[in-house]
Amino acid sequence: MKQIEVIPSAKYVDRSIIEGSTSVVIDVLRATTVMVTAFENGIKEIVPVLTPAEADEVKEKTGEGVLLGGERNAEIIPGFDLDNSPFSYMDDVVKGKILVLTTTNGTLAIRKASEADRVLIASFLNAEAVVELLKNEKRITLICSGTNGDYTLEDGLCAGYLIDMLKSREDVELSDFAHLVHSFYFFSKDDISGAVSVAKHYRSLKKKGYEKDLEYCFRMNESEIVPYYSNGVIRKQA
Amino acid sequence: MKQIEVIPSAKYVDRSIIEGSTSVVIDVLRATTVMVTAFENGIKEIVPVLTPAEADEVKEKTGEGVLLGGERNAEIIPGFDLDNSPFSYMDDVVKGKILVLTTTNGTLAIRKASEADRVLIASFLNAEAVVELLKNEKRITLICSGTNGDYTLEDGLCAGYLIDMLKSREDVELSDFAHLVHSFYFFSKDDISGAVSVAKHYRSLKKKGYEKDLEYCFRMNESEIVPYYSNGVIRKQA
Repeated sequence: MKQIEVIPSAKYVDRSIIEGSTSVVIDVLRATTVMVTAFENGIKEIVPVLTPAEADEVKEKTGEGVLLGGERNAEIIPGFDLDNSPFSYMDDVVKGKILVLTTTNGTLAIRKASEADRVLIASFLNAEAVVELLKNEKRITLICSGTNGDYTLEDGLCAGYLIDMLKSREDVELSDFAHLVHSFYFFSKDDISGAVSVAKHYRSLKKKGYEKDLEYCFRMNESEIVPYYSNGVIRKQA
Repeated sequence: MKQIEVIPSAKYVDRSIIEGSTSVVIDVLRATTVMVTAFENGIKEIVPVLTPAEADEVKEKTGEGVLLGGERNAEIIPGFDLDNSPFSYMDDVVKGKILVLTTTNGTLAIRKASEADRVLIASFLNAEAVVELLKNEKRITLICSGTNGDYTLEDGLCAGYLIDMLKSREDVELSDFAHLVHSFYFFSKDDISGAVSVAKHYRSLKKKGYEKDLEYCFRMNESEIVPYYSNGVIRKQA
């Protein structure tokens, strides 16, 4: 029997919930989708940091081969190499490089998740591969990164999709909140884009002209890569 | 346009969210159901306190006509007059009395809600009457009390029911979390008892033999009374 808990946003991650569990961090729009995309395109490792200043420090210490990426208010940070669009991580520019990434919600959730036994990075792109790696885990905490401390529907839909796959494979014990997000996924699964069209962060990105990103971030199972976070660095499973 | 936000549990109530809003505290199993029932049966006022020791202090200061009620682990507190079953508040014993109440989640949520402009007490019993009182409010925060810091499905179902009624009366702007709990209510409304049967706290009360309470707590709109919390005391609307 697997126990599954879901955390509504990065703000609500605390040690007492995640300690002893495998945590799965989800930030569909767009940090974890960017991470999976970057590994698909040959990035060597990703260092998630909390602030642009911390990003500069890491770059200074690491030296050559470092790219600075991320966003504030969904836009590129002044002086940075790359923004937070997955399409910026698709060409040869990322190959073999170290990415230092700071985003408003996803990188914060990952850093806060470090008290867990194991931290995996999930998005719709690699959902099935993540579920495959959770086979032997007894206690799973799905962390919806959210936006500015609030729950967002798109992260909950991805959590619901993961739960749906886990449930179909073995017996699970869901918390009430896990039931809730799973039910929402279940009732929405034939029209994910309709379900997410009311979501605040989704609407805000759409208004800013990121339609192409929004379409890409909901593609399912196009990647077999499951990045994991350990000792301050995100790498892909060997 | 009404803005509606939902808070997943008492643990997550913070000033930045509730300040300037009308907060509605929901603890279906069983604190807010008990409160509505007690007012229906003639209680004069309710003082929500955080601990049994605080209850004793209030009793000592207030003197005659005080009843101590509440629960820990769903059972009566040693030395108290009444437990947390709505059926304990139905006879003449409560008439004209002051109830000092301490429960694990509901009374905590109410105390934390005191930073809001206005605090109303809701349950399925008085849901429609609560919606009636929210007519002129621009910003509403529905606080699901939850259990031990966790979200519970029954409070979310009641929040979803309130949202459903508010939506049918006027334009509302829902947060992502408000969308989520409303959707769950909407998909479950023809079988509320089926939807809630997977909920942890519901199952735990059932196991302890509280079937009669569980049936009662999901009765809808049997009361017109909307208790409100102000200056440390819960009274009914005149």
